[in-house]
Amino acid sequence: MPLAVYAGSFDPITNGHMDIIRRSLEVFDEVIVAIAVNEAKVPLFSTEERLELLKEIFKDEPRVRVEEFSGLLVDFARKMGSKVLVRGLRAVSDFEYEFQMAQMNQKLFPEIETLFLMTCQQYFYVSSRVVKEVARFGGNVQDLVPPQVSALLLHKFGGPNELR
Amino acid sequence: MPLAVYAGSFDPITNGHMDIIRRSLEVFDEVIVAIAVNEAKVPLFSTEERLELLKEIFKDEPRVRVEEFSGLLVDFARKMGSKVLVRGLRAVSDFEYEFQMAQMNQKLFPEIETLFLMTCQQYFYVSSRVVKEVARFGGNVQDLVPPQVSALLLHKFGGPNELR
Amino acid sequence: MPLAVYAGSFDPITNGHMDIIRRSLEVFDEVIVAIAVNEAKVPLFSTEERLELLKEIFKDEPRVRVEEFSGLLVDFARKMGSKVLVRGLRAVSDFEYEFQMAQMNQKLFPEIETLFLMTCQQYFYVSSRVVKEVARFGGNVQDLVPPQVSALLLHKFGGPNELR
Amino acid sequence: MPLAVYAGSFDPITNGHMDIIRRSLEVFDEVIVAIAVNEAKVPLFSTEERLELLKEIFKDEPRVRVEEFSGLLVDFARKMGSKVLVRGLRAVSDFEYEFQMAQMNQKLFPEIETLFLMTCQQYFYVSSRVVKEVARFGGNVQDLVPPQVSALLLHKFGGPNELR
Amino acid sequence: MPLAVYAGSFDPITNGHMDIIRRSLEVFDEVIVAIAVNEAKVPLFSTEERLELLKEIFKDEPRVRVEEFSGLLVDFARKMGSKVLVRGLRAVSDFEYEFQMAQMNQKLFPEIETLFLMTCQQYFYVSSRVVKEVARFGGNVQDLVPPQVSALLLHKFGGPNELR
Amino acid sequence: MPLAVYAGSFDPITNGHMDIIRRSLEVFDEVIVAIAVNEAKVPLFSTEERLELLKEIFKDEPRVRVEEFSGLLVDFARKMGSKVLVRGLRAVSDFEYEFQMAQMNQKLFPEIETLFLMTCQQYFYVSSRVVKEVARFGGNVQDLVPPQVSALLLHKFGGPNELR
Repeated sequence: MPLAVYAGSFDPITNGHMDIIRRSLEVFDEVIVAIAVNEAKVPLFSTEERLELLKEIFKDEPRVRVEEFSGLLVDFARKMGSKVLVRGLRAVSDFEYEFQMAQMNQKLFPEIETLFLMTCQQYFYVSSRVVKEVARFGGNVQDLVPPQVSALLLHKFGGPNELR
Repeated sequence: MPLAVYAGSFDPITNGHMDIIRRSLEVFDEVIVAIAVNEAKVPLFSTEERLELLKEIFKDEPRVRVEEFSGLLVDFARKMGSKVLVRGLRAVSDFEYEFQMAQMNQKLFPEIETLFLMTCQQYFYVSSRVVKEVARFGGNVQDLVPPQVSALLLHKFGGPNELR
Repeated sequence: MPLAVYAGSFDPITNGHMDIIRRSLEVFDEVIVAIAVNEAKVPLFSTEERLELLKEIFKDEPRVRVEEFSGLLVDFARKMGSKVLVRGLRAVSDFEYEFQMAQMNQKLFPEIETLFLMTCQQYFYVSSRVVKEVARFGGNVQDLVPPQVSALLLHKFGGPNELR
Repeated sequence: MPLAVYAGSFDPITNGHMDIIRRSLEVFDEVIVAIAVNEAKVPLFSTEERLELLKEIFKDEPRVRVEEFSGLLVDFARKMGSKVLVRGLRAVSDFEYEFQMAQMNQKLFPEIETLFLMTCQQYFYVSSRVVKEVARFGGNVQDLVPPQVSALLLHKFGGPNELR
Repeated sequence: MPLAVYAGSFDPITNGHMDIIRRSLEVFDEVIVAIAVNEAKVPLFSTEERLELLKEIFKDEPRVRVEEFSGLLVDFARKMGSKVLVRGLRAVSDFEYEFQMAQMNQKLFPEIETLFLMTCQQYFYVSSRVVKEVARFGGNVQDLVPPQVSALLLHKFGGPNELR
Repeated sequence: MPLAVYAGSFDPITNGHMDIIRRSLEVFDEVIVAIAVNEAKVPLFSTEERLELLKEIFKDEPRVRVEEFSGLLVDFARKMGSKVLVRGLRAVSDFEYEFQMAQMNQKLFPEIETLFLMTCQQYFYVSSRVVKEVARFGGNVQDLVPPQVSALLLHKFGGPNELR
């Protein structure tokens, strides 16, 4: 099973995402980290910033390829020649949404299989949304994201407040 | 029990909705399909389009009446002379929201009862939101919606992409 | 829609069950309260006790019929000439089990429809199991069950303890 | 344990919130009701209106202090000299979000503990969002909010419609 | 990724299990179907019956190996030389239990990864427990299990009742 | 708030329980760890063993008192002069059961309040049941329970198997 696709907004990538990617690499030969471009949302980091950031983070990992895509994920996976989507599961509400997406994707493109990994309990509470909220108010997110992301967030929002 | 009200946005109606209506007709003499007009949201199909579409779809079913309403659903049901609201349940998150709504409606208008049907497992993953997303990217939604809806979506978003 | 079946162990019947039956009678002409006989479990009240108790409770309500059944509920409903099963929903775990049962029943006997009512918030925490546990330790269950049940529980377990 | 912080949008405060505050006062010496100022959302009541409203509601309860805050709740609690956050839990989706927040807060500020109370079943279906929706359409919310709030909502949206 | 382990009681195997195995074979070179021997429970089919039944069912699929095991699943997987456990997810309650098991297994044996597949919506309501209950009461389970299982259940419980 | 009651089977106590007790001691002056005696279940450790074990574990913590009780927890708390029950929450299914218990307890004894702490994510997957299962099969549970418990489990089930 050479090739899996792991898609998301990655706005920004967190240590929870990093953990899913690291564990996927123990199972798959190669993982495409696919940045979903969603014109309906205004991201904190532009598509270009996210592409650059992810390429920097994985520059020493030849088995990770960073791509962007728009449109249906199953179409993208098919074009990439991959038959496996990887997803992280964290909570019951994730579960329900992911269940519906997996069913829909199977309907649209039956050859593609979705495999789920449970998010490590250490990163259970880490999401891109929460990381941005904490960083915006000067909270310390160093343990929650890769150092490149933490530096960029500091740059965007200013240093930690004096109470930290 | 002559008359039940089945309300929703129906933007657009899906085969999951169609299944709930079909099964309601086995239990009730007449079903009012009530389009909720919500000024806070911009729908894909205008209220007029949805009214016309639903009337077309049910033109040969004299036991289905299509109406629009704004305001509180329980007020609308009362004005229609109905004591029964029908709702479809699909997932745990549906369940919690519907539970709170049913309690609130019972508080506001104790004579009205809400009856729930479980969405058929075949349509478990079909929602208006997902149908629109798939259609927007050129995915094939023919098995998910009535033919009239599928034709309209094709018209709005263009034909399926070449990969399909 | 003349006839609905409301099945359960009713070991014993609680005010939560009573509320579902009362509300079903506003929608249906007649409700069969069907006591499920399950040889794999040892009930607190024997089938005979439960039959007698329910007949006593509903003796002035000609639209409620009390029956016992073993085997598949859908078979029983069919024999009774009913096309509608009524179920109460209380919690997420109820929801999942009931969802699977409704799907299975639809597969076994497509003509039968399952309609769900949300348990009134006032009885949200009342279950036969909890009632028995509280009564066993001398807790006061008068507000949780019909008076006939409360008297029988007192008889089985002895009066409330002195702290009550 | 002298001092607990109970934070929220309180847009507006409901009887569900009032119940959590009342029960917190049985356990804690003093409760700070902290209005979260969120610049990303447009509230129905301005921060000033909410401050004034809450001060009016609690003017005879010397053990409740009303404050506003922006930024991280744990920072605010630390500045107030409190080590305890109080939260109400109502539904499974509350649970998941609150779980993630509690973990994140413990990570950011380990000395602060989050204690949860289950919302009383009587207020299970009452939320600020639902109260506003019902009031907007002329529904009666007198039993769902303190009288001061109900008067203000009447002022904002006009009296109950004729059907009520 | 040559080898995955799919463990369960398989008492009996259902079409839901068959679907997970079929889909696992599209991703993995070989799948070990591992029958968990649990001395604390009395199964309907003995370990020997289940072994024989599964070997018969997969006799033409050289990429499926049938084994039994007792003790910890991660120990068994390690002895088999597999680093991947496959699990099916069907409902929220599955999710929570599986989440805890996956965390515990990762703690006990960090090299082993658990991958989850969502049960196909067609088999969402099919479980060994429900199949046995339906078969016991003479319900028709032909569409829910492989033909070999259906024949054995008929043998154990007798033919469908006359109503079927 | 001097005195809280933390009740459970503690068969055996785990590091998840230890974490809840430790955090309760930061909020309360004194915590009664109350072992529930349930004659309907056969525990792994007898009531006497559990009492002795807990007294040994907390012998240097004068603010923890170990007691056993049977009957209703609220009665026990009242006899102890405590108005606060502490509970740990771990998962959605915990949540629902605990919600019903808290409502029932409030009905039985309105003066008693139940406060919930979220189980630390580090112990999310640790339960007495899972600990016993792992220990029974020779798995290493040293990181999951206090050393006294781990020694006793080793004694009951024998040393870790050779694969560990």
